[in-house]
Amino acid sequence: SSSTPPSSWTPPSSANHPLLLITHDGSGAATGFVEADAEHPHLNVHDLGVTRGDGIFETYSIGRGHVQALDAHLERFARSARMLDLPQPDLGVWRDAVLAIGQRLADHEEAWVRTILTRGVEGHDMLTGWAQGRPSPDYRRERTEGLRIALLDRGLRSDVAQTSPWLLAGAKTLSYAVNRAAVREAQRRGADDVVFVSSDGFLLEGPNSTVVLRRGSTLSTPPFGILPGTTQGDLFAAAPEWGLKAVMEPLTPDDLHAAEAAWIVSSVRHVTPIRAVDGVERPIDASLSAAWNGYLHARLS
Amino acid sequence: SSSTPPSSWTPPSSANHPLLLITHDGSGAATGFVEADAEHPHLNVHDLGVTRGDGIFETYSIGRGHVQALDAHLERFARSARMLDLPQPDLGVWRDAVLAIGQRLADHEEAWVRTILTRGVEGHDMLTGWAQGRPSPDYRRERTEGLRIALLDRGLRSDVAQTSPWLLAGAKTLSYAVNRAAVREAQRRGADDVVFVSSDGFLLEGPNSTVVLRRGSTLSTPPFGILPGTTQGDLFAAAPEWGLKAVMEPLTPDDLHAAEAAWIVSSVRHVTPIRAVDGVERPIDASLSAAWNGYLHARLS
Repeated sequence: SSSTPPSSWTPPSSANHPLLLITHDGSGAATGFVEADAEHPHLNVHDLGVTRGDGIFETYSIGRGHVQALDAHLERFARSARMLDLPQPDLGVWRDAVLAIGQRLADHEEAWVRTILTRGVEGHDMLTGWAQGRPSPDYRRERTEGLRIALLDRGLRSDVAQTSPWLLAGAKTLSYAVNRAAVREAQRRGADDVVFVSSDGFLLEGPNSTVVLRRGSTLSTPPFGILPGTTQGDLFAAAPEWGLKAVMEPLTPDDLHAAEAAWIVSSVRHVTPIRAVDGVERPIDASLSAAWNGYLHARLS
Repeated sequence: SSSTPPSSWTPPSSANHPLLLITHDGSGAATGFVEADAEHPHLNVHDLGVTRGDGIFETYSIGRGHVQALDAHLERFARSARMLDLPQPDLGVWRDAVLAIGQRLADHEEAWVRTILTRGVEGHDMLTGWAQGRPSPDYRRERTEGLRIALLDRGLRSDVAQTSPWLLAGAKTLSYAVNRAAVREAQRRGADDVVFVSSDGFLLEGPNSTVVLRRGSTLSTPPFGILPGTTQGDLFAAAPEWGLKAVMEPLTPDDLHAAEAAWIVSSVRHVTPIRAVDGVERPIDASLSAAWNGYLHARLS
């Protein structure tokens, strides 16, 4: 009998994986955080985060230590907690943790931080939380050349967030197995990523991104899914800088095919043009893609 | 800096939580297992099982050390692995682990074992697996008095397992946040548990159970969802012992309301009569419920 994990579980040995464990009291209030070694195990096998995917996350983009859209992300973290009936996270503690991890990654041009809050070990009224960070992969190629996407049925109607809130549409939960399976299905179809379509025929979002179309001088994004998309929100707020107006409106696959340009937008990968839909090549707007990524990069630095 | 988790994470200190960590090689093959202390942390914060709910599970009922329907559960575990594009689990190793945990819990009238396999730490080709066990709660009251259930929209059509396999309908995954949110919604409505209804109006299953109706001498269960329900399968196979025939067929909420008796059936809670649907009391078949639970209990001992 031994409590030492087998050597086959040895996690990555990079020096760039800062980790802060968030401490909580029995009422669900965060009491602070402690630094920990990401190479060591920290989670109990009875944690509902792993046995049931019962928890929430948020991912933040970091540029040279600066955190993008910190407040918007923290507010969305709190919103996800409400949707899962979790105690409200103490955003002051989480903010300090994200900023501290950002500082630890300040030597990197681009990095990311993820905050995770789970319902804790089954049968115990004690939340589990942590903030972890890593340098970002190099996404320059995706941002310039674009991605091939597959449209995949999400099975759900576009209105389930209103009719059936227990389906958690719009919450960023740890239960992302379907999102990962969808990306594998896209890869089997020769694509890189996914845009989900509702059972009533509307574009929703990607597994980890927001879809944005340009038709003439109008930008549009669907009014469904994880709202607000923080990076998309930043771009829409700045739309007048590029002579564009921006709207949220229901969009269909036909709208995507017909659009002059289309993107998927996310916190870490930033703005990536859609260069093909279900195997059909489509034009990309290299100029606006570059301008947007430059804008996000400038805001990060 | 410290690698010691904060004291607020101290997990349960019961002596009845056997844990075996399954070791894997880089090809995804299981190489054996080692005993570990369930009170100590064993999981990395970058494990995809917790960050994405990207893994599978199976729950086995144990009676005085005897494992119920072991082969059927192991086959379903392998089927879930296929649906998630995970390497096929080495069922010989997993079987030995389940039996070993069962033996550790042989002093208990009823207990359960759960096997979990995750895609492992992100960026590493190394699966994470373990088998954990616990004595069961006392379910005698639920089994005799029954449960109040709420019918809740699952949002998905009854045919998505065929049309959209990436939605993982029919796989037992770690992404169960919706199942847990649905039970909380049922509790808000004054019920104890849930039977999901498809968007095209058919009964599906409970968050962790199979629904069974009796109309005259015919038992029926829906042909959707996690197939086969191992406990339900055992009862259906033995139906002639009670002069009943058993069929799988599409069922509606009207069928449930009209049935002479109805149950939800699961590996650990066994057979629980449905005593109310959406607040409307309905008859229970105490005699058949007792016979079935006695039958399952006899098989376990």
